[in-house]
Amino acid sequence: MRTINIGMFGLGVVGCGVVNILRNNGDLIRSRLGADVVLAKAVTAHPRKARSVSLDGIAVSDNPDTILDDPRIDIVVELVGGTKAAKDIVLRAMDAGKPVVTANKALLAEEARAVFGKAYEKNLPLGLEASVAGGIPILRSLKEGLASEHILEISGIVNGTCNYILSKMTSEGAAFDDVLAEAQRLGYAETDPTFDVQGFDSAHKLAILVNLAYGTMVPYKDIYCEGISHITPMDIAYADQMGYVIKLLAIGKLVDGRVEARVHPTLVAADHLLSQVHGVFNAVYITGDNVDATMSYGRGAGAAPTGSAVVGDIMDISRRLLSGQKGGLPPLSVMADRLRDLPVVPIHDIDSEYYLRFQVLDRVGVLARMTTVLGNNNISIQSMFQPSTADHPSDPVQVVLITHNARERNVLKSLEEIKTMDFVAGSPQLIRIEKLID
Amino acid sequence: MRTINIGMFGLGVVGCGVVNILRNNGDLIRSRLGADVVLAKAVTAHPRKARSVSLDGIAVSDNPDTILDDPRIDIVVELVGGTKAAKDIVLRAMDAGKPVVTANKALLAEEARAVFGKAYEKNLPLGLEASVAGGIPILRSLKEGLASEHILEISGIVNGTCNYILSKMTSEGAAFDDVLAEAQRLGYAETDPTFDVQGFDSAHKLAILVNLAYGTMVPYKDIYCEGISHITPMDIAYADQMGYVIKLLAIGKLVDGRVEARVHPTLVAADHLLSQVHGVFNAVYITGDNVDATMSYGRGAGAAPTGSAVVGDIMDISRRLLSGQKGGLPPLSVMADRLRDLPVVPIHDIDSEYYLRFQVLDRVGVLARMTTVLGNNNISIQSMFQPSTADHPSDPVQVVLITHNARERNVLKSLEEIKTMDFVAGSPQLIRIEKLID
Repeated sequence: MRTINIGMFGLGVVGCGVVNILRNNGDLIRSRLGADVVLAKAVTAHPRKARSVSLDGIAVSDNPDTILDDPRIDIVVELVGGTKAAKDIVLRAMDAGKPVVTANKALLAEEARAVFGKAYEKNLPLGLEASVAGGIPILRSLKEGLASEHILEISGIVNGTCNYILSKMTSEGAAFDDVLAEAQRLGYAETDPTFDVQGFDSAHKLAILVNLAYGTMVPYKDIYCEGISHITPMDIAYADQMGYVIKLLAIGKLVDGRVEARVHPTLVAADHLLSQVHGVFNAVYITGDNVDATMSYGRGAGAAPTGSAVVGDIMDISRRLLSGQKGGLPPLSVMADRLRDLPVVPIHDIDSEYYLRFQVLDRVGVLARMTTVLGNNNISIQSMFQPSTADHPSDPVQVVLITHNARERNVLKSLEEIKTMDFVAGSPQLIRIEKLID
Repeated sequence: MRTINIGMFGLGVVGCGVVNILRNNGDLIRSRLGADVVLAKAVTAHPRKARSVSLDGIAVSDNPDTILDDPRIDIVVELVGGTKAAKDIVLRAMDAGKPVVTANKALLAEEARAVFGKAYEKNLPLGLEASVAGGIPILRSLKEGLASEHILEISGIVNGTCNYILSKMTSEGAAFDDVLAEAQRLGYAETDPTFDVQGFDSAHKLAILVNLAYGTMVPYKDIYCEGISHITPMDIAYADQMGYVIKLLAIGKLVDGRVEARVHPTLVAADHLLSQVHGVFNAVYITGDNVDATMSYGRGAGAAPTGSAVVGDIMDISRRLLSGQKGGLPPLSVMADRLRDLPVVPIHDIDSEYYLRFQVLDRVGVLARMTTVLGNNNISIQSMFQPSTADHPSDPVQVVLITHNARERNVLKSLEEIKTMDFVAGSPQLIRIEKLID
């Protein structure tokens, strides 16, 4: 029986997950490949550190060359994270003709040109399923199952920490800070949660999704990214009363030759399937021109689900190696000569419906003055909602307006004007509404 | 640029969908393959019949040999349906060394040994994504993304007609017959709806799912199949009051070396994601040992979604042909020497929770007598629910019992005993409850 030898960088949570799966499900893997997959070597900065799994039979070193210079290593798995050392490893591996499997969303998003460029240049398959939505085989669906589709829209809940926090805020009426603290205690949020709660992690995954969907490499820095820390229980409660749920969505579309790629809290209709995705679960809702609406759901993180995606990619590449096939799927779904440089739509150029919450003094004519400003900026109102009246004229009240489709630039201009008015008692809240096809 | 020539059998709904996609999305397909996919020939029993699409450029004939004997045809697409002519076409194509793409669930389920056997023998890829859940790339996920997973359970809503009917019965409290008539008017149900509402269509799809998940070929006739025509608005209302929704599920599991494969109406927890799948949509919920819970959702039928799955398979096989790869994924996920003959668990040997509804006269001691029979048969009761009392002692009342996990054989034996008792005023209703992992 033939053997596929793996060299793996990184022995953290996902790395240990991969060790476990290759060991525990070895016979299943053999039955499907007709070959053994052996984790021959691992490289880590701390080779002697105690791990949650046995490393028996794996040559562990802190020297990358032991893998990169070894002609017997068939596939390199990069689970180091970050964009510096990982980039070097991935590029060197491909230069040595070795296919790479990586779970590194930051690298794939921020160094798309270097990494995908090298994969195209060397005609090597690049396994990246684990980089987006953990165990959900969503990238494979985009590249293969939906290969003939023009993708109309991608809307993903791709960060489990944020979805856990928003779900808890929704079910318990709790404040962001309190739920974050609880999530940290439970291990669902990092000690420094910035990367998750500010949306950067979702933006990395969105970059990969839109690049695959549209055969492009959008500059990561052009993706609009807004986190969830300004969402209040009040907004969640008002949204609920108007038939919406608040989710952190990663949204990608192709509109008139430009890519919309944006991450922000979003009002989603409460009866939409995406609104039923709770807790740490992820889901990616994709509509195509023929297939119409689809959704893939599952665990977006964790040793076993993410490890499963890594091993799935290892098996896919192993099959190609065993059948003597060079290359495989083009790394970004399209042939090299069909890659396009698609610009990203600046956020103030998008069209959307908006949830706008104002804190105002409860005076006669306030609503008229606000809606006049909005009207003058081409924004029409779909509905208005004032949850309560003031006990005392000096107490501010909340007024929520839902707009029809409007250009964001006009909305921002209106808010600037309204903010200066004498009845305004606080900063307005703006949350975009996504009308999902279903 | 190279050309992949397709020969297609059948120009019905899905066939016309394929014609449309190949024509409208031709440039996209070219960008992804670096080759043209051309529908060169089509065979239909009625070559001169008017179609919803233009057949310009396609050589249409009623003679199968024009495709099967043409060495320029690279891939054969079978959209004839049924198990007789289709079987002949598929086997002849493979004997001629041509890879096949088919949407024919009846053929794949009932003639698994002939069709998959031939694909193994000839080492040919077999495209079957369109046979289960239309546009949802669920088979590809099972074969590739979840390749390293031991599949713990498959629970699918895979028949849009039944899901439409049950959804409408649930939202409107309407009776089966009325909703079926409406579904027929709207084109969501066939004039002869037997095949859908009796569960046979779901059973075909389930056979394909379990065969792929477990590397086996279960005899289609061994799959337990129960339709939805005996479900009443009363059962739906009672289930709702106890926190459940009734769905027609196709359930597959591997239990102690035997396959559970059964199609029947099922109580699913109302807050489970599968319960949120409404109308004609399909969803397949799969749990694996590492990936845990996943769900794939989308349209299970229709020209465009099913056509999209067919074209996705055509592109996948085209890529293999273009890269000179022989074979590809083993047709049933495992290598030929690892195929297993797994027996199907007879329905009376399964363990499940049960919803049991009895029509009884409202006398003292009735519940005690029923629960004594159940207790004597090792069945314990989780909850009891009697929606109303009788106005008159001769009016029957409904009593609903939810059991703990029990062996079906014992449940059936109990029902036989209870049925003969003097207070029983009608046939008992039995609906299985599925405790889904989530």
